[in-house]
Amino acid sequence: MADHGGEFSAVGKSFPRLEGFEKVTGATRFLTDLELPGMLYGKVLRSSFPHARIISIDTKRAEELSGVKAVITAADTPKIPFCIIPRVANKLPLEDKKVRYIGDEIAAVAAETEEIASEALGLIEVVYEELPAVFEPEDALKPDAPLLYEEKGTNIAEHFHKEYGNVEKGFQEADHILDDRFETSPVTPCCMEPRSCIASFDGSGRLTLIANTQAPFSLRQELSKVIPLPIKKIRIIKLPIGGAFGSRLGMDSIDPICAFLSRKSGRPVKIVNTREEEFVTSRYRYRMAIHLKTGVKKDGTLVAREAKVITDNGAHNYQGYTITAGLCQKLTFVYKIPNIKFDGYVVYTNNVYGGAFRGYGNPQITFAAESHIDMIAEKLGMDVLDLSLQNIVEPGYETISNCQITSCGLRECLIRAADATGWRQKRRRPGRRGIGMASMQHAGGGIKIFFGNINCNYSSAAMKMNEDGSVNLMTGSSDIGQGSDTVLAQIAAEELGIRFEDIRVTTADTDLTPMCLGTYGDRVTFVGGRAVQSAARDVKKQLLDLASEILEANIDDLESREGRVFVKGSPEKGISIPELAEFSYFKKGRPILGRGIYDDPISKPDYGTGYGTSPAYSFASQVAEVEVDVETGKVKVLRITSAQDLGKALNPMAVRGQIEGAMAQGIGSTLFERLDWVKGRTLNSNFLDYRMLTALDMPAVEPIFIESIDPNGPFGAKGVGEPALVPTAAAIANAIYDAVGVRIKSLPITPDKILAALEEKNSIYKR
Amino acid sequence: MADHGGEFSAVGKSFPRLEGFEKVTGATRFLTDLELPGMLYGKVLRSSFPHARIISIDTKRAEELSGVKAVITAADTPKIPFCIIPRVANKLPLEDKKVRYIGDEIAAVAAETEEIASEALGLIEVVYEELPAVFEPEDALKPDAPLLYEEKGTNIAEHFHKEYGNVEKGFQEADHILDDRFETSPVTPCCMEPRSCIASFDGSGRLTLIANTQAPFSLRQELSKVIPLPIKKIRIIKLPIGGAFGSRLGMDSIDPICAFLSRKSGRPVKIVNTREEEFVTSRYRYRMAIHLKTGVKKDGTLVAREAKVITDNGAHNYQGYTITAGLCQKLTFVYKIPNIKFDGYVVYTNNVYGGAFRGYGNPQITFAAESHIDMIAEKLGMDVLDLSLQNIVEPGYETISNCQITSCGLRECLIRAADATGWRQKRRRPGRRGIGMASMQHAGGGIKIFFGNINCNYSSAAMKMNEDGSVNLMTGSSDIGQGSDTVLAQIAAEELGIRFEDIRVTTADTDLTPMCLGTYGDRVTFVGGRAVQSAARDVKKQLLDLASEILEANIDDLESREGRVFVKGSPEKGISIPELAEFSYFKKGRPILGRGIYDDPISKPDYGTGYGTSPAYSFASQVAEVEVDVETGKVKVLRITSAQDLGKALNPMAVRGQIEGAMAQGIGSTLFERLDWVKGRTLNSNFLDYRMLTALDMPAVEPIFIESIDPNGPFGAKGVGEPALVPTAAAIANAIYDAVGVRIKSLPITPDKILAALEEKNSIYKR
Repeated sequence: MADHGGEFSAVGKSFPRLEGFEKVTGATRFLTDLELPGMLYGKVLRSSFPHARIISIDTKRAEELSGVKAVITAADTPKIPFCIIPRVANKLPLEDKKVRYIGDEIAAVAAETEEIASEALGLIEVVYEELPAVFEPEDALKPDAPLLYEEKGTNIAEHFHKEYGNVEKGFQEADHILDDRFETSPVTPCCMEPRSCIASFDGSGRLTLIANTQAPFSLRQELSKVIPLPIKKIRIIKLPIGGAFGSRLGMDSIDPICAFLSRKSGRPVKIVNTREEEFVTSRYRYRMAIHLKTGVKKDGTLVAREAKVITDNGAHNYQGYTITAGLCQKLTFVYKIPNIKFDGYVVYTNNVYGGAFRGYGNPQITFAAESHIDMIAEKLGMDVLDLSLQNIVEPGYETISNCQITSCGLRECLIRAADATGWRQKRRRPGRRGIGMASMQHAGGGIKIFFGNINCNYSSAAMKMNEDGSVNLMTGSSDIGQGSDTVLAQIAAEELGIRFEDIRVTTADTDLTPMCLGTYGDRVTFVGGRAVQSAARDVKKQLLDLASEILEANIDDLESREGRVFVKGSPEKGISIPELAEFSYFKKGRPILGRGIYDDPISKPDYGTGYGTSPAYSFASQVAEVEVDVETGKVKVLRITSAQDLGKALNPMAVRGQIEGAMAQGIGSTLFERLDWVKGRTLNSNFLDYRMLTALDMPAVEPIFIESIDPNGPFGAKGVGEPALVPTAAAIANAIYDAVGVRIKSLPITPDKILAALEEKNSIYKR
Repeated sequence: MADHGGEFSAVGKSFPRLEGFEKVTGATRFLTDLELPGMLYGKVLRSSFPHARIISIDTKRAEELSGVKAVITAADTPKIPFCIIPRVANKLPLEDKKVRYIGDEIAAVAAETEEIASEALGLIEVVYEELPAVFEPEDALKPDAPLLYEEKGTNIAEHFHKEYGNVEKGFQEADHILDDRFETSPVTPCCMEPRSCIASFDGSGRLTLIANTQAPFSLRQELSKVIPLPIKKIRIIKLPIGGAFGSRLGMDSIDPICAFLSRKSGRPVKIVNTREEEFVTSRYRYRMAIHLKTGVKKDGTLVAREAKVITDNGAHNYQGYTITAGLCQKLTFVYKIPNIKFDGYVVYTNNVYGGAFRGYGNPQITFAAESHIDMIAEKLGMDVLDLSLQNIVEPGYETISNCQITSCGLRECLIRAADATGWRQKRRRPGRRGIGMASMQHAGGGIKIFFGNINCNYSSAAMKMNEDGSVNLMTGSSDIGQGSDTVLAQIAAEELGIRFEDIRVTTADTDLTPMCLGTYGDRVTFVGGRAVQSAARDVKKQLLDLASEILEANIDDLESREGRVFVKGSPEKGISIPELAEFSYFKKGRPILGRGIYDDPISKPDYGTGYGTSPAYSFASQVAEVEVDVETGKVKVLRITSAQDLGKALNPMAVRGQIEGAMAQGIGSTLFERLDWVKGRTLNSNFLDYRMLTALDMPAVEPIFIESIDPNGPFGAKGVGEPALVPTAAAIANAIYDAVGVRIKSLPITPDKILAALEEKNSIYKR
């Protein structure tokens, strides 16, 4: 991707969010604010048992309640299971024969008010036959465990096995082998806006679903299958969205339920999750048990790695398999390790089912892997910085999992993060303060996905330049709060040579905007950005053609910058873009329309898992500084220094926001956050009991941007949304070890775990 | 334009309107149904004097009324005059120094309810100094007439003079010269939905105006100048619209008033005209006095024509000049007349100002011209059918006004209309029944307009084919009830070879849709249609490229029809379009986006008037059959046979609807309709007193489609929205003459006029 000689006018600048003013003044209308004429309110009856057979459902009394306009059960639906990975779909919008977790959808009501709908739920009589349940994956694997899906004969939803190189031989070459078990907890994204949707049908039976979604076009596909309705009979509209973080990538049961209610009642229906429903039913980050074995030579050369991961899949399939299988690819990164073996087991339990949450498995595996690196360095008596620098991947390297590293600033990340923190001075100093480091890689431009018939990684954009030279940009990319609309506008402005303020962005309405596969895998800046850039080039070509005629200059000698097209080297010989646009519209009779598509030519599919490779990888190294109170076990994070290889910081302020936001989630999930499940029941289903990081807990965050200028990213950029929270848990765990010498291998690292570890350590010393 | 061998699958079929079901079931939401959160209601204070100086306006009491959120007068506005023809703008959104008609806007209020807003209007104290007023153009031309615009020194707003050939010489060659005066009345379109708008500003100061408009993009320009705000700071949204007929082509004062109120109050504001305001302030059809002189040889050859037209411009400039000047071009049509002279005077009076209304001056001038032809035939003792056939224009003819006649089915119109009615048998038969004929031409593809900087006649369209082969079509063309969305979808479907049902149309939102100059001059089917066709070809090319690869066939050998792409002559060797689309999206990673622009290369501007030529002309001949009650003077229209050269009937049912609707307006304005002005006051400002045609008055309408297949229209089509009402008045007047021998030269032809004429005729006979 040719750049503009390094001098940019729109990219690399900290423009405030396009929607920022409206958001901070409270003017933004979210889905929950929306009322359609004649709209009803929907409520969902959910299972109160973790595992039970549904014997009967009697909705008669609910139907008779005044104000109730529709009551539905599975009998009112075609009972087509859904899953974002269609091959393994086993969740019904409304469950039919069995419920498998506390929260499983059984029936739903649409009524004139929310209160009537809630009252009606209480009038639905469900007779259950309770079944034995299982909540721990290890228990679920036992031969006598109750089966969630009897017909499957096992609770193993999927098993993924892969070996690169020869692991046995690798371990034989190792001088040291470390073998440890790590555990992570279920953490939930806590979106400020509860999941919600509004369904309505027009006279032709066409469904419009206004939804919280990161991927309107794949939601259209998912709905299409389960309602069922042809694609052309569905419109998905995404409004401004109050948080997503991966959890709104795929369809939720409430989406089709809302549609079924609307169809039955003949009225628009809105469903808004209660906060409790958010906590009990959201796609949370899967909890995993990770057995990790790493072999290293005395000189620090990493020679072999073996991992066995058990993922708690919960009651239904969603993304457990791709996330678990994807961990294998992640293990082939950061360091060059020639021999890697991976076994991932995705196991059904009677817990709620999880999904994607910022990092897509990476926070879990990186906690294990980067804790291990710290332990190995300790074992070898090396500084972990040196061990890392000795083994890290470099630009041009192809991993044994066939990932092409086009750009990589990891070395600089490590060095700059260490320099910025005074790493070598602070490391291994006495006292309660400690410093820890961890690194990571993450897909920086989406991944090639292969679900069913999809085998690509693309986006597309349409553009219109108005007669005043301003631009309407239309893209299917979903801004889910990460600021992609703003960055896409910057890319368009830069490419066109016009002002950022002159771009107007419309995103994510399946009737209006070109298709984008969705917001995931840190792909919008890269893939969506390239599509926008391509559309802008298309428009620019039309401007240059016209300017070439007016200025009597060769098109190749023209440049478009700062709102003007001019002859390179003779900036006085030029014409303003508004003049060009006006001329085109009113003298030439040529409206200016552009389009762009970008399907990355680099990434490769993985037909086995559906989780392929990325066209670019982002890297980061984080240094955490902590203070541990050995009396209370409390950890205070003093500072996080996060060196991020993001290719190019297209909007430094937005990137800083991404990193700060990720830090809040990264530290929270390291130290506090966990869904407390007891026999399948979520005990902390509110913000009082579910402990998020607060402003008071937030340490100083020092982002360092490493601009490795990716050869394929728009103006060199790679994704930056997910990486910043990936290495945080390991960095903090390593810093805790540096501070007080205890190694905590399970998340969250709560005071009781530290106290127990300190006690054990002391008792060992005492012995 | 190559056709498809005459076999069409989507065009030429009577698909019901896309929006028909929603409309007939009452589900359609019009602007008046819309409520925005926090919305206020606006009301306008209007002048109650036809001509007065504004001495002072005191809004204090209105401002103090509880619930009032904003009161504005001209002092709150930048006082920038507007006009759809900017050169002659002299109407302020809110008048400042003077009011010039009863209805002129003076102040406006936004309040929590309509009732409060109305009450507040009554609290605004305006001190006027009444001025002498003038209501008849002839009076306004007198030397001592009060002047509406003192600085102009005359009440002549514009005078247009043009001579083609040598009229003096022409009349010298004539054996007979007829010289008559015709008059038309002001008739108003009576849109079912009153004019209304909703204005709101976002945090960045960007205005969204939801408006009743036929031309969102030119409304954006008009608003931009008058608010003032840059184009990029304005979004215009057109909703389904309950009638327009030309009257909503340009901006109305309520549009900027609504914006000013919204800006001042900081809230969204809705203004909905009352029905009385509709009658008193709408852009009605200008009334004209037409002095027509026609010279003819004994053998029936028309040799010269001279017209002097006086148009009552009302109080402000709008389209009086272009409409009046455009009459000259219209006189050069239908018949080949080598010498034509035209003088048009547009004269200010203290009446409301008019505008475009279906026909754009053509109903007025054709009433005169085609009455004259009937009178000439009478004079010559010829059948008017023969006289017409002898003189009419033919395909390939270029008028002396430089209009290129590309296709012309006028001869067939005349013959078919005569045949269908048994013309020669019925003509001149005794009894109270009569039969009359009239013909017309009208722009069939818009006109090249030249207002300020605009010199073109174009439209543009964007298209997206979805992964299921369905299509989203986006066009800036406004469906104003005439059914253009449906016809554009048919054109897209035909060109792509897919089903009509698989096209989804989004129209007319300046942020979303490509630019179209607007819905006027019967241009949407022709110009908008060609733009859509071009976008469809762009998409088709992408499909054929892919099919060529899959089918291993040369792209030129492929055809796209009935949902499949196949090898011509080997239909079994093919692939369905949904399969192709899916392949493109999911195997090739190629979203399918198309765009099309069309600027007609034929029409020519007229830099003098701004009213240029059309790329195509539609023709029609109508035969009216009437029965006249000589006791009451009442005319009963028994049947109208309307032979329309429309190029190609893309949707016969829609065309029939256009013709029937036009008939209702044409007969109504011939026999009943007239705004009753007395000293500038509209006496019949309601549906009781303003007599429209009702279902009971509606005669049998026999449309005959003459398909002349225009070489440039989409699939041969030309516009058909306006023509059908153009010749109706003359056809009826001629039929009345045929029935009872009286010639009524002023519209409407009311019973009292007939009785008076009969009496005069009888008194002549008696004499």
